[in-house]
Amino acid sequence: MTSEQLQTIFGTATFEPVDVALYGQAQEHLDQLTKPVGSLGELERIAQRLFAIGRGRLPIRIEPGILFTVAADHGIARQGVSAYPQEVTRQMVFNCLEGGAAINILCRVNGLQHKIVDAGCAGDEFPPHNLLLSHRLGHGSNDLSAGPAMTRNTCIEALRYGHQLGAQAAQNGFACIATGELGISNSTAATALYCAFLGKEPAAITGPGAGALPPMVRHKAEMIAKALAANAESVKSGDPIAILAALGGFEIAVLAGLMLACASQKLPLVVDGFICTSAYVSACAIFPPLADYAFLSHISAEPAFVRMLPQLNLKQKPLLDLGLRLGEGTGAALAYPLLRSAAAIYNEMATFASAGVAQSI
Amino acid sequence: MTSEQLQTIFGTATFEPVDVALYGQAQEHLDQLTKPVGSLGELERIAQRLFAIGRGRLPIRIEPGILFTVAADHGIARQGVSAYPQEVTRQMVFNCLEGGAAINILCRVNGLQHKIVDAGCAGDEFPPHNLLLSHRLGHGSNDLSAGPAMTRNTCIEALRYGHQLGAQAAQNGFACIATGELGISNSTAATALYCAFLGKEPAAITGPGAGALPPMVRHKAEMIAKALAANAESVKSGDPIAILAALGGFEIAVLAGLMLACASQKLPLVVDGFICTSAYVSACAIFPPLADYAFLSHISAEPAFVRMLPQLNLKQKPLLDLGLRLGEGTGAALAYPLLRSAAAIYNEMATFASAGVAQSI
Repeated sequence: MTSEQLQTIFGTATFEPVDVALYGQAQEHLDQLTKPVGSLGELERIAQRLFAIGRGRLPIRIEPGILFTVAADHGIARQGVSAYPQEVTRQMVFNCLEGGAAINILCRVNGLQHKIVDAGCAGDEFPPHNLLLSHRLGHGSNDLSAGPAMTRNTCIEALRYGHQLGAQAAQNGFACIATGELGISNSTAATALYCAFLGKEPAAITGPGAGALPPMVRHKAEMIAKALAANAESVKSGDPIAILAALGGFEIAVLAGLMLACASQKLPLVVDGFICTSAYVSACAIFPPLADYAFLSHISAEPAFVRMLPQLNLKQKPLLDLGLRLGEGTGAALAYPLLRSAAAIYNEMATFASAGVAQSI
Repeated sequence: MTSEQLQTIFGTATFEPVDVALYGQAQEHLDQLTKPVGSLGELERIAQRLFAIGRGRLPIRIEPGILFTVAADHGIARQGVSAYPQEVTRQMVFNCLEGGAAINILCRVNGLQHKIVDAGCAGDEFPPHNLLLSHRLGHGSNDLSAGPAMTRNTCIEALRYGHQLGAQAAQNGFACIATGELGISNSTAATALYCAFLGKEPAAITGPGAGALPPMVRHKAEMIAKALAANAESVKSGDPIAILAALGGFEIAVLAGLMLACASQKLPLVVDGFICTSAYVSACAIFPPLADYAFLSHISAEPAFVRMLPQLNLKQKPLLDLGLRLGEGTGAALAYPLLRSAAAIYNEMATFASAGVAQSI
């Protein structure tokens, strides 16, 4: 989208690509550190990218980091596309608020602050809680197999809210934003978005999500094909907002806005797995240079994920490959220490000259 | 080796395999946690293995952890097999003592205590330092291309010292042992050990180590072939102590002993890259069930590494794949948060019953 189009959504925020000339400057520094040139592999690439994202300011800042688990429900759930009943979204939000979910534990162990965002779960509003932020866009999105998941205006509201979350985090001093999601049936919406944005066929990329068996996966692919047909005009328009409104979900649209805030706030973004990456693909359709800011945390075990990577214009391969398929932000939390490690290497290691170590012959 | 043979080296220490029946018990618990069954992939496998290594005691303990960077010099260095001069070993030990090396920084960021062990660097003893342990087996090993790198007695002393380091760490309350190394030309010794233990040809698996260019790599392979010929009797004997003495190095033999202590102390072992894995292969030749205790931290960028994995009888694939080829323990330090994460998941996550979350339909 043009700067003018971005402005109509995000007001005065400015979105800029990273200055890639800074990569070279970072590599020069890395090559002076007491290690064989290039021997820290992907960690050096992380450091280089963090340096450029921060516009060359030193020390590279990566802490504190914050992870947002954005939750919402999906009208498509009524079509029987998930191994879990819809009420699990709500139950898992409560589990997160009580600290019993995987993401609570992984944020604590890996040094991330954590917030849960209710972007529109089915049922009543949640009671106030210090981990909870609430911006309910409805009681779940509409059934995308019958028409758009949400209106264009709701989608824009979600993007704005997500962007505001990120801008607020930057203002509060956070130096890194990590993303996660929660929402029964959201792998259906994510898959529909991949089809629309990457030109994929539903039957080719639909997978089990949270654990659907083969007959349910086939039905899920049919529902996605139906959704693409029911929203054919939006899909054909190529307009990223129209596509995201038609096939996304409240949490996915909020996440896309949150991700875009990394480009306006010049912060590194850590993307979780299959669902979050569909928000990332949507956000890149809105502002392609977002790729400069993004670290894909891991290769999701959702079968199509690895096959779609070549289309994502990534600046670096996903950091972990642990067969994860849980969501919530678990992969992003597990990858965060690699970013902390890379920044510390850049900031703190001795150089050959300072340590009096001989360079290679 | 038989229990009696182990006893002649390690005295009263007893070495036992893990009780694999505990894997099933661990999986039952993991399947009750609030996540789709199996959705934490390799993290669940780590948790399962940690549970079994600890003989089912709860909570699973993984902290505090300690990383030993064991340093030594190599007589083979005089044959021009490394891109760096031999004095770099000594300079890098000083760099570690001053906190400027990659491993200092990665231990701190990833929550490991750190010790540097001088197992026999060239030159004088290092001045006392709170990070330094000293057990000098000589001023560097002998040139293995001309005969055994060390005597059988020295090798046994190295194994005993390494084992004692690990036993002492366990007694001091450490719950996890991670390994690293430092030693110019030690990828030559490591490659020779792989050839002897895994039946490989030098030309097929010799790589650049810290950065040798192709002509040096070819010369290095020739020196390894010469070492295998000069020590043919030891290699043919199949006796792991004879092979380790003939082709190893002081740090590699100490590391093999340290690794074996994980099996006698029932502690998880985190193995760094190419060099440490050659110590691991040596230690497994001495006591094969050590595999139950070991977590290979990463896939080294040394080209042959990934091709040898199928021969290593691993219980789990290496945890990271970041193109690292630095050594010192850097890969092990980076992998440690994954073990901390897995243990915390096992110890702390809510179950479906406790959190009132519905299971799959």
